[in-house]
Amino acid sequence: MHDFMLHRPTRLLFGEGQIARIAEEIPEYARLMITYGGGSIKQNGVLEQVYRALDGRFHVEFGGIEPNPSYQTLCRAIDLAREEGVDFILAVGGGSVIDGTKFIAGALRYDGDPWDIVAKRQRLVFDAVPFGCVLTLPATGSEFNEGAVISRPETGDKLDFHSPNVIPRFSVLDPTTTYSLPPRQIANGVVDTFVHTTEQYLTYPVDAKLQDRFAEGLLLTLIEDGPRALEEPENYSVRANIMWAATMALSGYIGSGVPHDWASHMIGHELTALHGIDHAQSLAVVLPSLLRLTREAKRAKLLQYAERVWNLREGSEEQRIDAAIEATRGFFERMGMPTRLSGHGLDGSGIPTIVDKLVEHGMVALGEHRDITPDISRQILENAI
Amino acid sequence: MHDFMLHRPTRLLFGEGQIARIAEEIPEYARLMITYGGGSIKQNGVLEQVYRALDGRFHVEFGGIEPNPSYQTLCRAIDLAREEGVDFILAVGGGSVIDGTKFIAGALRYDGDPWDIVAKRQRLVFDAVPFGCVLTLPATGSEFNEGAVISRPETGDKLDFHSPNVIPRFSVLDPTTTYSLPPRQIANGVVDTFVHTTEQYLTYPVDAKLQDRFAEGLLLTLIEDGPRALEEPENYSVRANIMWAATMALSGYIGSGVPHDWASHMIGHELTALHGIDHAQSLAVVLPSLLRLTREAKRAKLLQYAERVWNLREGSEEQRIDAAIEATRGFFERMGMPTRLSGHGLDGSGIPTIVDKLVEHGMVALGEHRDITPDISRQILENAI
Repeated sequence: MHDFMLHRPTRLLFGEGQIARIAEEIPEYARLMITYGGGSIKQNGVLEQVYRALDGRFHVEFGGIEPNPSYQTLCRAIDLAREEGVDFILAVGGGSVIDGTKFIAGALRYDGDPWDIVAKRQRLVFDAVPFGCVLTLPATGSEFNEGAVISRPETGDKLDFHSPNVIPRFSVLDPTTTYSLPPRQIANGVVDTFVHTTEQYLTYPVDAKLQDRFAEGLLLTLIEDGPRALEEPENYSVRANIMWAATMALSGYIGSGVPHDWASHMIGHELTALHGIDHAQSLAVVLPSLLRLTREAKRAKLLQYAERVWNLREGSEEQRIDAAIEATRGFFERMGMPTRLSGHGLDGSGIPTIVDKLVEHGMVALGEHRDITPDISRQILENAI
Repeated sequence: MHDFMLHRPTRLLFGEGQIARIAEEIPEYARLMITYGGGSIKQNGVLEQVYRALDGRFHVEFGGIEPNPSYQTLCRAIDLAREEGVDFILAVGGGSVIDGTKFIAGALRYDGDPWDIVAKRQRLVFDAVPFGCVLTLPATGSEFNEGAVISRPETGDKLDFHSPNVIPRFSVLDPTTTYSLPPRQIANGVVDTFVHTTEQYLTYPVDAKLQDRFAEGLLLTLIEDGPRALEEPENYSVRANIMWAATMALSGYIGSGVPHDWASHMIGHELTALHGIDHAQSLAVVLPSLLRLTREAKRAKLLQYAERVWNLREGSEEQRIDAAIEATRGFFERMGMPTRLSGHGLDGSGIPTIVDKLVEHGMVALGEHRDITPDISRQILENAI
């Protein structure tokens, strides 16, 4: 096991009706800003529950944070927050709203050009406005970690930043807020959570037995309850398991003390930036192809994955690895997710541009061994056509 | 899954040499008290590492906190801390030192009789002196939770208290600090961790898939690496897995959202209080007998445990449950732990006293169904002779 430091001070409030408790979590005289996305929280009653909990307290609102939150939109939120003297933020939404809120919170206490926070690839956020979350879309784990991903569509950039100062003070996880999500968003959340887990698990063994077993527990839970989340949208238990899995997958509890990959994410981010396909859809395309190309480096963990997650115990090592990769592909497809570029109507002509963007963003040595060069990224994408 | 609130703000520093980082975690001008136990940290170099990290900073020391930390000893520590104006504590040791330190920290900010904190069975600790830990004995999980158990040998009391204000600020987990532990203490730690897990797992199903898988991951890790921890005392990986398992088992991450039992602990505490056998030894005696007597109420989870932890898939339900309970007993015995009172030279003549003490302490409706009456506790103990 590698050394690690783990600190997750977020207060997690899990269960139906927990939104009612946010008033205890937000300072009474805060100058509060509520951030949200496209307005679905107005239709499904979540914003109504937030208002009821706040019971007339001061707040301003900033809606319209889009999927893959854009720098331009967030700058408008920063301006509004400055004008209103905002000193606490409540993010109500999924990973994009929470990631955007992390950027707003950090930028409000950062003196330079806010774009530096992501562009300079350094840890520049030494302070941030405190914020809490009401999660409505289980997927990114942003509600319980220190990372965020910000996009700038006009330049085709999609970049992450990390800071211990943007860990939420609290996060409300009420599985019933996910009942009204469209199937595509549930599928995205399940696949995103699955790939978050494999990025921290399908690398090479370091005898971190508990992290491995926890990762396998996450994957098995998603395989069992992911399809049921599509079939039975109001099954509380199923939605609760999916929501808790999404939070735990990127919480640090499976990722501490082990090597990380993240190549699928880095390549996938460029796919999303160029072609606009959903984040999880990009992962479902990249991961199976990546696993095939990196099978030697990942051999021991792929065999463990085959046995413990897919119960594949027969046949040669090659056969078990092939079967595990195909089972992964089959799971994504069962979640309604194409696993090839052609499934998204793409013919691969964008691949050179994607590879150029990887190089531009410094993503020239990806994966747990830092050996996924731009040329290998290109092969991964070509094999995924 | 049941509703829950989970908050674990402790900074965890895991790995060899992490003691060197405590100076960053303790305020520079703190009036620091270092608490420890019988002095083994002087022999194994841990206290030396602490001194080196503190580099001449002010501190007072309080040693001699015994296993099952006694009220009388802790009162002396409270007096010393008051005299010295202590405002930060560093606990260096195992669960007893940390539990004792939690009591000291809470009592220093409590106006009434300190014994109230445990005796009144209420949450009286609204404030506490901040403290951190250097863990040297993986077992109780106290380094990452809000509970503590305090004893008063002269009255035969052993009682717990809980408060969010006694969660450590930080905990250093360096597996090499455990190399010099006697085998009995390693065995105690592994068995204690195992039973912490079963107390939160072997109850009844609430479809909390992830908590179940995480609990099973803990049990499998202990079964694989527990005996190796005895055989290969300086195997870093093995000690790291055991240490991390102990911390995670009582961290709230497997226990949130699920029913809890804790009857083995409550009965075991009385066994320890009366006969002085080690805490984990008391659990190894009580648990197998308790599982036999509560098999109907625990049937579904016992079958799941048989299959997923012990790979028992053949035979009738009764046979699989019997085999799982015997496998549990076999594991404890492989750890060098008697699983009957007779193994500790006890003939059962103390059982009426133990049952009286349970009644005196209000432990009259134990277990996840609150149906373990004093009479059933008596049967559990009688069947364990």
